[in-house]
Amino acid sequence: MSTKLDRNPVNFQFQLLAQDNRARAGIFSTPHGELPTPIFAPVGTQATVKSITPAQLQEVGANLILANTYHLYLRPGDELIAEMGGLHQFMGWSNPMLTDSGGFQVFSLGGINQIDDDGVTFKSHIDGSSQRLSPEKSIAIQENLGADIIMAFDECAEPYDRVYNQLAMARTHAWAQRCIDAKTRTDQALFGIVQGGIFPDLRKQSAEYIAALNLPGNAIGGLSVGETKAEMHQILEVVDRILPEDKPRYLMGVGTPEDLINGVMRGVDIFDCVLPTRLARHKAVFTATGRMNISKAVYAHDERPIEQDCACYTCQHFSRAYLRHLIIAKEMLAGTLLSIHNLYTLLKLASDMREAIIQGNFESFSQNYLYKIYKPDQEPGS
Amino acid sequence: MSTKLDRNPVNFQFQLLAQDNRARAGIFSTPHGELPTPIFAPVGTQATVKSITPAQLQEVGANLILANTYHLYLRPGDELIAEMGGLHQFMGWSNPMLTDSGGFQVFSLGGINQIDDDGVTFKSHIDGSSQRLSPEKSIAIQENLGADIIMAFDECAEPYDRVYNQLAMARTHAWAQRCIDAKTRTDQALFGIVQGGIFPDLRKQSAEYIAALNLPGNAIGGLSVGETKAEMHQILEVVDRILPEDKPRYLMGVGTPEDLINGVMRGVDIFDCVLPTRLARHKAVFTATGRMNISKAVYAHDERPIEQDCACYTCQHFSRAYLRHLIIAKEMLAGTLLSIHNLYTLLKLASDMREAIIQGNFESFSQNYLYKIYKPDQEPGS
Repeated sequence: MSTKLDRNPVNFQFQLLAQDNRARAGIFSTPHGELPTPIFAPVGTQATVKSITPAQLQEVGANLILANTYHLYLRPGDELIAEMGGLHQFMGWSNPMLTDSGGFQVFSLGGINQIDDDGVTFKSHIDGSSQRLSPEKSIAIQENLGADIIMAFDECAEPYDRVYNQLAMARTHAWAQRCIDAKTRTDQALFGIVQGGIFPDLRKQSAEYIAALNLPGNAIGGLSVGETKAEMHQILEVVDRILPEDKPRYLMGVGTPEDLINGVMRGVDIFDCVLPTRLARHKAVFTATGRMNISKAVYAHDERPIEQDCACYTCQHFSRAYLRHLIIAKEMLAGTLLSIHNLYTLLKLASDMREAIIQGNFESFSQNYLYKIYKPDQEPGS
Repeated sequence: MSTKLDRNPVNFQFQLLAQDNRARAGIFSTPHGELPTPIFAPVGTQATVKSITPAQLQEVGANLILANTYHLYLRPGDELIAEMGGLHQFMGWSNPMLTDSGGFQVFSLGGINQIDDDGVTFKSHIDGSSQRLSPEKSIAIQENLGADIIMAFDECAEPYDRVYNQLAMARTHAWAQRCIDAKTRTDQALFGIVQGGIFPDLRKQSAEYIAALNLPGNAIGGLSVGETKAEMHQILEVVDRILPEDKPRYLMGVGTPEDLINGVMRGVDIFDCVLPTRLARHKAVFTATGRMNISKAVYAHDERPIEQDCACYTCQHFSRAYLRHLIIAKEMLAGTLLSIHNLYTLLKLASDMREAIIQGNFESFSQNYLYKIYKPDQEPGS
């Protein structure tokens, strides 16, 4: 435990500043600073938000960032990161951080060999070696990494399989308790995860169980994994009524600008997603009127920035024609500049939503935003 | 011609501030600002210094940057860049710029079909299409691009082939005259290029011819193309005695820290090279004690920065262990962070040399620097 924490104990307090229907604006205190909510966390899978320096991350307005336990456990190893002073120091990020439990990646990336009540045996996607994660191991790794928010080890089931979801939910609950028991550091907030697929009764049961653990924050897992938007919204509405109002709610792995608005509308405070940087590497950018693929020939002579009134570094300095040239010429700078725009867009949206909630006009703000995105007959970016 | 230039005519004046033996410190005035010499120009081949934003370029201390006529002519096309307001605006760089003539790339990258006294027919390395460059065409392209310093179209011969060097030199001289005649813009400084391979008598003849053209600056081409360091130094000494002292001298395509020192020692003012960014993409970094490959296993647990007393962003924030992790994990950020360090190192060296010349202690400065690099029995970076 660092002396800084001994001098300034942090109890991960969540202060609700304003509520507008179900939408909430708050502040979550962590050892590395306060998080204004709603908030979007860029993802730094392998201890780097792809193609972006920490200085650029701060410029786009990032505060909380996420790193992946599964990836860092396999490479370079959580013990090496602990030896280097923890993840904050290793990757040069002094603001709050969150690590996931590794569960989601084990089920989606690792070749699963065996799942039992104790944990999961899987093959590393890097070298095929046999590896094992359990609730205790996940917490030990996350304590070595040293993020401010850590996640309970959970099992994410195929969303439409009711029998599997019942089983996975029961395991997720038992594993959450074991994570609580395994935890030794007092400067990390452990969040529980609600599972239950697309089944409202299972989600209700799971939310009640996780809420009763009285952890400093609660997460909603197993969404944005193949279900419809309507199903996701219905589940959020079920869970929103059950999770305690005085704790932050974190919707994992989401998403798009419209997903953020729909989540906040249903009581969500924290989001994370690889989408802004992944889209950027696939040449797509967010605009107020939808997604735009900047590599299209139609932009070859387009002097306009991606968005005329966007204040990001990319839009302030570069034309669509230049960005398209970088893409066609396979220049690395394309990924960097498009990532800057996409991250800025989501972070600005989170900040604008917070302001609207505090001003009490979130409903009109969100309707205007969604209307532009869903408006038919309009070319994005025009 | 922009109204800015009409209001502030620039005559590309070179002011020599100090001389220490043959080493020179000066200021070269261009329409986009003053260049303190000695200076190193990072290379932005395709209108981007690879993996680095213009803001990061300014942070590492870059002032003059170079872009390649050959590449930009083929893609996205010089006419498109002119339509977008020229290269400065296209790539978001408001400081001075230099474009080469395309000659070197035509001879090294393009599949040559025919060289005659009029120009060169070659195959595009991108799509195999047949293309032609001539002195007139090179100047027309460079006028479309709009850099502050433009280069005469030259022929770079194999350095040891005397007969070919005589022919290529004669062509280079004739082409320089045609470039002067073809030039129409008054806000660009055309530099001539000395050729002649490793042959002192040819170099003398070429330097005398080019000097007599009375252009605002003179360049030395056809070096660092396979000859020995001793041969390069000998040629620089021959040329240094002939080129006018009141014009800047530009050694093209060079190089390493030791090459910069050896060049300045022999009267060179301007350098450019892809080396710092290319090395970075191949995991190598400059240190005061030589080149270091940061991907080596020995750095896996090394908490130190690349260089303990380096003030670059990379060394101020990241350990060798982190940089090695980024490389092993194939993260794009590795190229960015190593490029920042390598560019900073060369730009700082140019600035330190300038200071030493002004202080009159360039000899001891350069001997100390070279001694550390060439010192045997020392592991780089230790």
